[in-house]
Amino acid sequence: MEWSTAFTEMFGVRYPIVLAPMGGSAGGELAAAVSRADGLGLLGSANGDAEWLAREAPIVAATGKPWGIGFLTWSIDVDAVDLALSYGPRAVMLSFGDPSPYAERVRAAGALLIVQVCDLEEAEQAAGLGADVIVAQGTESGGHGASRGRSTLPFVPAVVDLVSPIPVLAAGGIADGRGVAAALVLGASGALIGTRFQATAEALVEPATTKALLEGRGQDTERSNVLDIARNSPWPSKYSARTLGHPYLDHWRGREDELAGDPQARRAYQDDVARGAIPPLPIWAGEGVDLITDLPSAEDLVHTMAAQAEHALTQTGRP
Amino acid sequence: MEWSTAFTEMFGVRYPIVLAPMGGSAGGELAAAVSRADGLGLLGSANGDAEWLAREAPIVAATGKPWGIGFLTWSIDVDAVDLALSYGPRAVMLSFGDPSPYAERVRAAGALLIVQVCDLEEAEQAAGLGADVIVAQGTESGGHGASRGRSTLPFVPAVVDLVSPIPVLAAGGIADGRGVAAALVLGASGALIGTRFQATAEALVEPATTKALLEGRGQDTERSNVLDIARNSPWPSKYSARTLGHPYLDHWRGREDELAGDPQARRAYQDDVARGAIPPLPIWAGEGVDLITDLPSAEDLVHTMAAQAEHALTQTGRP
Repeated sequence: MEWSTAFTEMFGVRYPIVLAPMGGSAGGELAAAVSRADGLGLLGSANGDAEWLAREAPIVAATGKPWGIGFLTWSIDVDAVDLALSYGPRAVMLSFGDPSPYAERVRAAGALLIVQVCDLEEAEQAAGLGADVIVAQGTESGGHGASRGRSTLPFVPAVVDLVSPIPVLAAGGIADGRGVAAALVLGASGALIGTRFQATAEALVEPATTKALLEGRGQDTERSNVLDIARNSPWPSKYSARTLGHPYLDHWRGREDELAGDPQARRAYQDDVARGAIPPLPIWAGEGVDLITDLPSAEDLVHTMAAQAEHALTQTGRP
Repeated sequence: MEWSTAFTEMFGVRYPIVLAPMGGSAGGELAAAVSRADGLGLLGSANGDAEWLAREAPIVAATGKPWGIGFLTWSIDVDAVDLALSYGPRAVMLSFGDPSPYAERVRAAGALLIVQVCDLEEAEQAAGLGADVIVAQGTESGGHGASRGRSTLPFVPAVVDLVSPIPVLAAGGIADGRGVAAALVLGASGALIGTRFQATAEALVEPATTKALLEGRGQDTERSNVLDIARNSPWPSKYSARTLGHPYLDHWRGREDELAGDPQARRAYQDDVARGAIPPLPIWAGEGVDLITDLPSAEDLVHTMAAQAEHALTQTGRP
């Protein structure tokens, strides 16, 4: 079918499918594959590391298709945003933190501003700031999100009703075309997808991570601050991360304050990483990981999800 | 449009919309209204109280439409099921607990067996038991559910894939026709809806509850064991309840064990109820409460949701 949503019209892309800008793993090849497949690829530049951007941005820019760059808002400054804008992205996405210091800069450069929100107050703020697109993130998403988050299915229509006519992307728990279709009928103009794209040929992840994602189950994922504390991560505590199971989760669950006050325990984490007892990084994964059973190319995946979504929208409920 | 799903075909109802059998509040008038509107009304008989059933069941049975009775599985015995079956329901729904002692009895009476599940193990067990319909309940649902629950959007397709071709109903966070449409495109054959039906003319709830639901926000709801402990409820602790905010939640959050061991604090709860400082019952509410802004008749609500769902399915993503 011919897709048309407020999002596809705004960006001039064919499919309402967006690569979540997962820090580090959503690199140039992955973003390029999604944009080439006529979705929107967003680079996961995290704090805007100059060297990383210099390596990854030209790869996706070379596609000649719309693409963008995502930041962790709490970790950046205006220089990082200016540097990113110098690569000519169609959009900049800001997640987790106050986007107001950067909104005008993005707009002045002629790029579109995408703001990710975890509750209705943030959605209202993003709308007031003139965000071109608002991402409504549910708590089932992999990696970081609000510690006290909302579930995608009821959250998305509430955001849509609040910020209409600003286009909304649904994020969290979407791992196949059925989820894309669900995002759209809930009133979103597209789906932002992370974990599912981690298990593609182009993702910048270790083979052990891919294997864990293919084997992982949604009910084994858990949203927690424990691993951020253990690895001395600077993430603000109002954000926690959903990961697959981990020995440190079992050991420290419910005792976050104790872990934060125990430098020896945090050194033990580093030692455990060094001797290979635990993986170098947590395996960030959303609840949709149940639906991930293969390792396609990202380009094929976009086409497969679009075909599944079309089937769901055109066949469902009909005789 | 002409609706057709595995669920509507099995029950001979027009709409894939089911009233959740909310204990006490889903009485005869509410179930009858939903069944009359060509959805499926399920009485919320909880533990199968004989007096309650004798009053409520004849009201819905008189519609001549398909209807059913829902139980809290942990709270019943075979006599309760036999008594319920004597009213001639088209279906019996079992939630929260081991359904195996009752499955054969329901089948032998010629009724359909609906089993609600909170994780994939329970889904597999229900399928093995020969459930005719499986309800996949997400953690955003109002009232009771698994303490460590799954979110509806990623959980439903995982259950569908596991138990196919058994029809699945999606439950949790569905409060308008967009949610019904989302349930269907996720692969479910219908939507089981609770909180939204609490705010209808026919629900057996106090006016103060209705008011709280109309004013409540999804982000103020919380899943917790605190209120069950405080009110000396016999609910097993593996199930918690999502409610609107409550002073006892703020006071005892994270200190459940302490509350359980403090009979004086629990007496204080009864005293606070007696003097009107807190409501007689918690206000059970799902995250979809954001979407509840009016107080229609349940019959109108079914028709409105069906029309919204049809609109979502036929217009979404199209030019």
